Amino acid sequence: MESKKTSRLQGVLSPVVTPFDHQLRPDAPRLIRHCRWLVSQNVGLAVFGTNSEANSMSVAEKRELLDALVEGGTPPDRMMPGTGCCAIPDSVELTKAAVRLGCSGVLMLPPFYYKGVSDEGLFRNYAEIIERVGDDRLRIYLYHIPPVAAVPITLSLIERLLNTYPGIIAGIKDSSGDWNNTRAMLEQFQPHGFDVFAGSESFLLATQRAGGAGCITATGNVNPGAIAHLGRTWQEPDADAQQAKLDATRAIFAKFPMIPALKAAIAHYSSDPEWTVVRPPLVELTPAQREELARNLNAAGFAMSGLPRPA
Amino acid sequence: MESKKTSRLQGVLSPVVTPFDHQLRPDAPRLIRHCRWLVSQNVGLAVFGTNSEANSMSVAEKRELLDALVEGGTPPDRMMPGTGCCAIPDSVELTKAAVRLGCSGVLMLPPFYYKGVSDEGLFRNYAEIIERVGDDRLRIYLYHIPPVAAVPITLSLIERLLNTYPGIIAGIKDSSGDWNNTRAMLEQFQPHGFDVFAGSESFLLATQRAGGAGCITATGNVNPGAIAHLGRTWQEPDADAQQAKLDATRAIFAKFPMIPALKAAIAHYSSDPEWTVVRPPLVELTPAQREELARNLNAAGFAMSGLPRPA
Repeated sequence: MESKKTSRLQGVLSPVVTPFDHQLRPDAPRLIRHCRWLVSQNVGLAVFGTNSEANSMSVAEKRELLDALVEGGTPPDRMMPGTGCCAIPDSVELTKAAVRLGCSGVLMLPPFYYKGVSDEGLFRNYAEIIERVGDDRLRIYLYHIPPVAAVPITLSLIERLLNTYPGIIAGIKDSSGDWNNTRAMLEQFQPHGFDVFAGSESFLLATQRAGGAGCITATGNVNPGAIAHLGRTWQEPDADAQQAKLDATRAIFAKFPMIPALKAAIAHYSSDPEWTVVRPPLVELTPAQREELARNLNAAGFAMSGLPRPA
Repeated sequence: MESKKTSRLQGVLSPVVTPFDHQLRPDAPRLIRHCRWLVSQNVGLAVFGTNSEANSMSVAEKRELLDALVEGGTPPDRMMPGTGCCAIPDSVELTKAAVRLGCSGVLMLPPFYYKGVSDEGLFRNYAEIIERVGDDRLRIYLYHIPPVAAVPITLSLIERLLNTYPGIIAGIKDSSGDWNNTRAMLEQFQPHGFDVFAGSESFLLATQRAGGAGCITATGNVNPGAIAHLGRTWQEPDADAQQAKLDATRAIFAKFPMIPALKAAIAHYSSDPEWTVVRPPLVELTPAQREELARNLNAAGFAMSGLPRPA
């Protein structure tokens, strides 16, 4: 396949949390406002990630949100929607929609129902999707998140995909939490134009220093400016101090279930309680947890400046 | 909710393997023929189970197959389609379709993307689906399969669901492979009209002797007559001998990946190579594996009498 030039995603992205109303319906206007704020903070938009509750939405709901985002002025060249589903027809439909809307890339989970599947089977899954989408603009970022998907993407699978579909296979998000694995990907594949994103800002500085592309991080939803700043200034003398400060903020969130905690923080700082809603099987924080989170964040001098308020 | 009388599923069911053509499209006529054969062997139809590659199909594909099955004369009162998805709207859509077509029950996985979710979150998932379906004819069989879904259904979750939705919560398929767990469910819930199905025929006799409803088993696709026979005659003196023979047949299949092996056996005994096709991430047996399987089955005197041939 000939490869056309597209803008390359770099730096810090966030798996954008998805607002739901009290009837559990996706709330496009709130999502658009949140995305606009993230972009203003120099954070890219990995909508439909794990922290977006993407797998708690139907394909139709995700397509509607994607259309609404682009129609609402969200820049597709800053977007890397998650499009990997268990069923190939679903992955193809979402990926086609993302490519046609001009998204710079897609973040693609492996099919995650069956466990212990072979690299051959996972290769066939990605190959089938690539062939069916059949578009030179497609840029796939593989999504390695064994703690949740429980279906890992091995180094040998990456190598085979990269050899078979150079240009199309554009990189990876490594959410293994295992720096040895991230480092192996950085050494083995980053020199071949395969962009390695760490799965959280905990590894941002280390990833940048090893030549990686950046990170895609849940807490980018709430602390975007500071994380993106380190992404741009990692060669400055204060980089280690910046990293330590990011780690301290992340640690406050990490004491709670991450997705409900992110939403609780957004609800708190925007005075917008609708943001606390999550879809089952997730459960929102209890009032006591919300208070504890807010207290800890306030004590740390945390702020979310410019966060949009309800319309 | 008032509960109307429906026929109660009992005995042996099979998660019906789904035929795909060489373009990986579901093949409704072949599925209808296979279902007709299973019913003729006294085996019920748990279509869209794990062994059906249900999660490798889109909701639209499953709805089309379900319509085709019923239109093609498959008796809905023998059907327990799998309808549990990661996203509530998908589970609701499939469940509504199944109830409206007159299916006797549905087999419902928990949402399986997020791991370590709470019983509260899983309860809310099932409650939301039940409320949205809003049909007194709904009979839900919970699907406990921790080796694959990696999201267990605990005894306390069952108790809460059963107390909140008596009549609607109709039973469980226990694919834990842990007899202690099956026994606990049999003791605690079977006396309250909650039908416990073992996840394979390995536990069929033990389940029947403990007052359970039967089993839902992959190898029901290939060895239906003998398994159903034990389901009906478990009080006869030869029951232990029957169980031993079933175990020996299952052991032949268990040496291979189960789904490709089931399909390879059907392809072999019906002289219909299309049956070998699986969707990625699964991979069909190699020619050498197919030969070994056939050799082992032939050596054991195995047959699939009356198996339909290609039209």
